[in-house]
Amino acid sequence: MEFARSYDPQPFHLDPEASAETFFKDLAASGWHTAAITMRLIVESVPLANGVIGGGGPLRWPSPTRAGDVLRVHTTIEGIVPSRSRPGRGSINARCLTRNQHGELRQEFCPRLIAWKRGVAPAEA
Amino acid sequence: MEFARSYDPQPFHLDPEASAETFFKDLAASGWHTAAITMRLIVESVPLANGVIGGGGPLRWPSPTRAGDVLRVHTTIEGIVPSRSRPGRGSINARCLTRNQHGELRQEFCPRLIAWKRGVAPAEA
Repeated sequence: MEFARSYDPQPFHLDPEASAETFFKDLAASGWHTAAITMRLIVESVPLANGVIGGGGPLRWPSPTRAGDVLRVHTTIEGIVPSRSRPGRGSINARCLTRNQHGELRQEFCPRLIAWKRGVAPAEA
Repeated sequence: MEFARSYDPQPFHLDPEASAETFFKDLAASGWHTAAITMRLIVESVPLANGVIGGGGPLRWPSPTRAGDVLRVHTTIEGIVPSRSRPGRGSINARCLTRNQHGELRQEFCPRLIAWKRGVAPAEA
């Protein structure tokens, strides 16, 4: 609710009673809160030497995160494509699935991440 | 930096000095912070009767938000598609462009939003 008050102040994210009459039928987390928590988990779990840096990608929320959910993220590296124009760089196609403790899918995000060849400094290549 | 400490704790979002050696070359906001601020601006500016509710969409950050940026969002309704299965509902294709005070594009997000026919209660249809 603190997140929603700052970034997504709508009744279904803030008011347990009013949320009953909405699409969500009960309190639901902002999708952007699910996305932000997912990013924290990715930063803690995806071991890229120069950090997790992405330019975006398709994002979807098949169901909203609910009070009591415990989220975990499973990241799959689906491909690595060397850059044609910059020999020290490449891009990683990743799929990040966020599920709750019952295995219900709360978010799918498929970013393209930037990666560097071993020994190449990110500020240079 | 408070947002990044909670959700995207990486040096280029937190440490002005260390960020010089990174891809961003200077302090950059987390893309998820840009996304969260964008959502706040959308909630304040897009007048949908039952709230702004989306299932996601393609998201990209052509450039990072920087210290001193003042963001504004321009939302275009690109189409409205009535639902085949639920006569009281439809979906709105929107394009939300987030720019800074110099017109530099910081984010593009193209969500599908849920909308209801006038007089239809969201919890019912």
